[in-house]
Amino acid sequence: MSPEEAPARRRGRPTGSRAGAPETREAILAAARSEFAARGYAKASIRGIARTAGVDPALVHHHFGTKEKLFGAALEFTFAPALVVPEILEGGPEGVGERLARRFLSTWEVPEVRERLIAVMRSALTEDAAAAMLREFVSRELLLRIAAQLDVPEPHLRAELAASHMVGMAVLRYVLQVEPLASADPEELVGLVAPALQRYLTER
Amino acid sequence: MSPEEAPARRRGRPTGSRAGAPETREAILAAARSEFAARGYAKASIRGIARTAGVDPALVHHHFGTKEKLFGAALEFTFAPALVVPEILEGGPEGVGERLARRFLSTWEVPEVRERLIAVMRSALTEDAAAAMLREFVSRELLLRIAAQLDVPEPHLRAELAASHMVGMAVLRYVLQVEPLASADPEELVGLVAPALQRYLTER
Repeated sequence: MSPEEAPARRRGRPTGSRAGAPETREAILAAARSEFAARGYAKASIRGIARTAGVDPALVHHHFGTKEKLFGAALEFTFAPALVVPEILEGGPEGVGERLARRFLSTWEVPEVRERLIAVMRSALTEDAAAAMLREFVSRELLLRIAAQLDVPEPHLRAELAASHMVGMAVLRYVLQVEPLASADPEELVGLVAPALQRYLTER
Repeated sequence: MSPEEAPARRRGRPTGSRAGAPETREAILAAARSEFAARGYAKASIRGIARTAGVDPALVHHHFGTKEKLFGAALEFTFAPALVVPEILEGGPEGVGERLARRFLSTWEVPEVRERLIAVMRSALTEDAAAAMLREFVSRELLLRIAAQLDVPEPHLRAELAASHMVGMAVLRYVLQVEPLASADPEELVGLVAPALQRYLTER
């Protein structure tokens, strides 16, 4: 051991060398998503998340502050795919319902993304703090941006009704797994759901 | 104290006189719904439910058997309003989307019904046992009956897509309370959502 290495160890930071690495941040976020998924927001702890990530709890606080902020970061990451919705709308009104339904389902069909989305949904439905954060995110990041691009009366309400249909489909298909929806071919669902989304987003 | 009363008390059944009364069953069901709502399926206990109902835990077992069966009974009661759906369909295809949307929203607008429905939703999204029971109920009691009355291709899938839209609307409006949906006038929502339901249930 070189003399330079000793002080850090003595300060009790076995993972100190990883403190500034981007992979530390990623490892903490991954552990957070997995802990929130398994235990829900209230029961997940910074200590447990640190243990799963293999880092000191102090590092979690250093990178993310409070549990609430850590949940927020996990949430933003989880919903990153939703941020492509304004892009989808930029493609013009024709076929927008179909593009949206297809993108939504293809996102949910990826197992690790699905696991994260279900975790957020579970936390939001059972914990007020998580519900407040999801509400804030959906209103501020999603509905505002989408509504700005819609040429319909009450664009926020229309955007939310379209979202509500997709959320409900995800609940029955991926969470409750009620048949025949759970096993239906995604492209068949795109064809069935697209007209409803199209109407909300474009019909004046 | 008359001599006849003594034996029952000695058997440690202070509520013994209520054992056979229908109101005992009702009190247990009400306590069960409230406990499942507050604590979720896994954490709710027969003991806690008995305490809330003011009866002996043995009485809960006597009336409902296991916790699983008690949850099932609370569920059937909660979803009783959904059993009117086949009736709504009997009114014929014209305006069925509108009648369905109106009945769904007016059911959710009643605070104590809403509380029960949210409790079931929470349990089903967080506990596999509750999810299995809800899935079974929805498939067997609801979708089968509805599909039998639809004159469309793949009636089960259509019925479920209509249901998914309503479930998603309830999640965003009543559980997450995302605006502007949360404060929208129910009749305005009926007008917006009805065409989507109508298409699923009647368009060939």
